[in-house]
Amino acid sequence: MDYTRHHLPPPTRRLSTEGGPVIDRTIPLLPPALEIDEHNFFDNSDPPEYLEDLIKETEEFVKFHNGRRIALVTSGGTTVPLENQTVRFIDNFSAGTRGATSAEYFLENNYAVIFLHRQFSLQPYSRHYSHATNCFLDYMEEQDGKVVVGPKYQAEMISVLRKYQAAKDKNLLLLLPFTTIVQYLHTLRAVSEALQPAGCRALFYLAAAVSDFFVPPSRISEHKIQSKAGGNQLKMDLDPVPKFLTRLVDKWAPSAMIISFKLETDSTILLSKAHQALERYSHQLVIGNLLQTRKYEVVFVEPNSPEFWIRLSDRQAKDQVEVESLIIPAVIERHNAWIKKSDEMAKDS
Amino acid sequence: MDYTRHHLPPPTRRLSTEGGPVIDRTIPLLPPALEIDEHNFFDNSDPPEYLEDLIKETEEFVKFHNGRRIALVTSGGTTVPLENQTVRFIDNFSAGTRGATSAEYFLENNYAVIFLHRQFSLQPYSRHYSHATNCFLDYMEEQDGKVVVGPKYQAEMISVLRKYQAAKDKNLLLLLPFTTIVQYLHTLRAVSEALQPAGCRALFYLAAAVSDFFVPPSRISEHKIQSKAGGNQLKMDLDPVPKFLTRLVDKWAPSAMIISFKLETDSTILLSKAHQALERYSHQLVIGNLLQTRKYEVVFVEPNSPEFWIRLSDRQAKDQVEVESLIIPAVIERHNAWIKKSDEMAKDS
Repeated sequence: MDYTRHHLPPPTRRLSTEGGPVIDRTIPLLPPALEIDEHNFFDNSDPPEYLEDLIKETEEFVKFHNGRRIALVTSGGTTVPLENQTVRFIDNFSAGTRGATSAEYFLENNYAVIFLHRQFSLQPYSRHYSHATNCFLDYMEEQDGKVVVGPKYQAEMISVLRKYQAAKDKNLLLLLPFTTIVQYLHTLRAVSEALQPAGCRALFYLAAAVSDFFVPPSRISEHKIQSKAGGNQLKMDLDPVPKFLTRLVDKWAPSAMIISFKLETDSTILLSKAHQALERYSHQLVIGNLLQTRKYEVVFVEPNSPEFWIRLSDRQAKDQVEVESLIIPAVIERHNAWIKKSDEMAKDS
Repeated sequence: MDYTRHHLPPPTRRLSTEGGPVIDRTIPLLPPALEIDEHNFFDNSDPPEYLEDLIKETEEFVKFHNGRRIALVTSGGTTVPLENQTVRFIDNFSAGTRGATSAEYFLENNYAVIFLHRQFSLQPYSRHYSHATNCFLDYMEEQDGKVVVGPKYQAEMISVLRKYQAAKDKNLLLLLPFTTIVQYLHTLRAVSEALQPAGCRALFYLAAAVSDFFVPPSRISEHKIQSKAGGNQLKMDLDPVPKFLTRLVDKWAPSAMIISFKLETDSTILLSKAHQALERYSHQLVIGNLLQTRKYEVVFVEPNSPEFWIRLSDRQAKDQVEVESLIIPAVIERHNAWIKKSDEMAKDS
């Protein structure tokens, strides 16, 4: 398996005609308007064409790590295309920091990690360099006709590079990409099913910012929506994205521990929204966070337990400690308990 | 001037409370609903807080390059926030390839370049590495305890690094960022005015993908729009973004040569839309392109001239020649004529 390979999602593949016809006539005619819910979503949307490759890689990865714990970390925002030949789309704010950072701490704690991420969002290890204010070339110097990394970057980079190489050499990190909400949901289902052999050793850490609303395939515009001189309003009706967490908990990954995230901007509703999600989906943990303070504090909401806040101290905030370095150990503690309970139930039955 | 400094646009700055209050009460109450047009847009939207810094840097840059030609290249897509504390936004498809690539060819032709770009989109020179399928760390190896660039990347990277260093050493490239449509328009106006001393030596190469519709400040939602279980539709009414090209041509940059882009997905309307834009704004050149073939061909639409197609030959396409290497010389030819004409008119008057 080529560890560094990126699967280019369809937008890139489909739109580049490489000298082919100007208009892509291969896109099928659209079905009539239809209400999309969780029962018919997968029948009424096309899986990404590269999905079979991803499934195969995931199956091999799960087999390779037989007995080891595996975290599926989702990361970055899904997009909602407003046109079929996509010029415009609705996006969710997410650089992928939470997911990429968390993945590193899972790896440090001997988990294998499947990183299901928005293409070009931050990735474990390379995140330290890719969205930095420095551009790639600012790290480089010329010495005797060769490109070298500047001396002041050596110390940190050697440490990051070693961790990255170790993860690579041990085949501990599988990178799977998505761009649109439809790609994300198809891939999440397929990967969850491929993860079933890992049973309770699988941990779902759903940090991706998933769209709540989308334009169903039957209503999507084929071409770029036109604006008119003098201009009319653009009216858009978006449908709610079907909620799939119940399916994930009950059917796709019945033995795994499942953690979802709840991001809000209004502090007065954060806790109630987190509790609502927990009751609705009956999974193991909701991690609540506010957009404004997400790098400093989160709250764990879980069944039969008081709310548990994880906060950086002033000292830690000043020292730029990553809050994920506190979150992941607390998550692993709960995964320990989940595995213990699952193993005991298996023995009893 | 710190060449590599990125100005972080407000979304990042404003949302990070750095230990402050959870909800930002400093955002003022919003004015009543109001139709936004090109006459009141700037009065009814806040300029980015970092704008003064950008103006100062641009003024210094223009002064420094007194007598030299300056290209203002805009690049990447603008966003339309759907909420004030932005979780969701509408985005335009654009990695910034056209702008970043074109900027390099302007620099090779002795232009100074102001690169007004979407934050984190592709940049001149670093574009060869930043959105590559390789991650940053894949270029690196450890040798004797030091991080070095792998031998197989040396030849290309030294050539890119030298060009980048030369641009940097000669202060030929000014990087100015934007994220939202409002930031973009405020910055474009301010930078255009700061460019006036360059007169006809200034060239506007407006390759950014600018939103056609936006949510005016008076209707924007303060917090994350809530989805409901069982789910209602989300109805969004977007207003047309006022067209500013007339203002740019007449008031902000009356002596400069101005080039706009027209991107379509439907080949049957590309030419008519390009001609429409040219008639409407009375500027010098519209470069038309189709999303599907934009890397292989573009069409120049200009007053009193037949349409002029620039196309890669099959051989060039196979050799991965960049179409911008053909576009920029053709643009510069027209800029030569524009300067000659302007200088003659100045002599006559």
